[in-house]
Amino acid sequence: MAKGEQTRQAILARAFEIAKTVGLSGLSIGRLAEDTGLSKSGLFAHFGSKEALEVAVVEEAARQFVELVMTPALRRPRGEPRVRALFERWLQWGQRPGGCFFVAAVAELDDRPGPPRDALVQVSKDWLDTLATAARITIAEGHFRPDVDPDQFAFDVYSIMLGFHTYQKFLRAPASLERARESLERLLASARAPAARAGDRR
Amino acid sequence: MAKGEQTRQAILARAFEIAKTVGLSGLSIGRLAEDTGLSKSGLFAHFGSKEALEVAVVEEAARQFVELVMTPALRRPRGEPRVRALFERWLQWGQRPGGCFFVAAVAELDDRPGPPRDALVQVSKDWLDTLATAARITIAEGHFRPDVDPDQFAFDVYSIMLGFHTYQKFLRAPASLERARESLERLLASARAPAARAGDRR
Repeated sequence: MAKGEQTRQAILARAFEIAKTVGLSGLSIGRLAEDTGLSKSGLFAHFGSKEALEVAVVEEAARQFVELVMTPALRRPRGEPRVRALFERWLQWGQRPGGCFFVAAVAELDDRPGPPRDALVQVSKDWLDTLATAARITIAEGHFRPDVDPDQFAFDVYSIMLGFHTYQKFLRAPASLERARESLERLLASARAPAARAGDRR
Repeated sequence: MAKGEQTRQAILARAFEIAKTVGLSGLSIGRLAEDTGLSKSGLFAHFGSKEALEVAVVEEAARQFVELVMTPALRRPRGEPRVRALFERWLQWGQRPGGCFFVAAVAELDDRPGPPRDALVQVSKDWLDTLATAARITIAEGHFRPDVDPDQFAFDVYSIMLGFHTYQKFLRAPASLERARESLERLLASARAPAARAGDRR
């Protein structure tokens, strides 16, 4: 990585941490300057505007999500084991301090049209596509029935995760994790091919 | 209804409409005074503080939800027909302009401890209890299997609704309604008692 790229990466990692605490709206180039000791003009040179900084933070969040959730899960065997790994690592991601960055960002940007919202919609759709692809592979492996709708499966897993976040962060319900896992089990059971052997599943 | 109570009710209905557009934080006694033509001192006499006004608006939202969603659904036959009616009227509630007030308010109040958040948590838990009770009745009627967990069922229905709102309002996905209904069908199918006759279901 070139020096300039390394600096940008370090600034982004810091900007992401700030945004997790105060939200994307609370993040400013001035605050980032104070926090990193860099000059405001230097940060403007890197990002150009507050809006471009927000887009860069959404992309940094996506980069970390790929690194911590997707990449390790994609190393697991194709089919149900991979679907389970995606789900479990996603749950872990949501349990980091402050909860899931994306859930908070969706709530924040929902009514704010513009490039940061567009970037977040794109990242969310990419993730739903990844889930649908994982379902498609699970059908191809014979673990799920051929008539399972991969996009419906993605909707269902995404819904469970939204339920988990609301139960955990807002309602502070004690059994949030167990509820989410139980829902996934029901979803997998309803999608599973009758011939799928128990040994294929984990 | 006494005159004072009628006035309060009319003010609250207006405050609820404002909060749906600008959020609870954007609602102020000053803005409400402009909007209703009442004096700020008169509104303070009714609500006491901005915080008390927010609590009153959450309770007004709950009152309207009971009137538009719960009460009509509870007139349907006990068991699966009632569960379906609760779900369908809840979907309709979420399709009113601006989307679901509660989903927006949860996002807004999540990180803001205080009486408005407490009121919203209470309203949400009451609603989840209503869903669990509906599931319990559906078991008693023999439409659901006896081993269905009513609180898990409430989590599952709530999750579907959160998925629906994110697909509809944030992602603007075209098939949001169909996805939500398909998920409910799968949930009902997995909960249904083998002996439940098709005639009991609608």
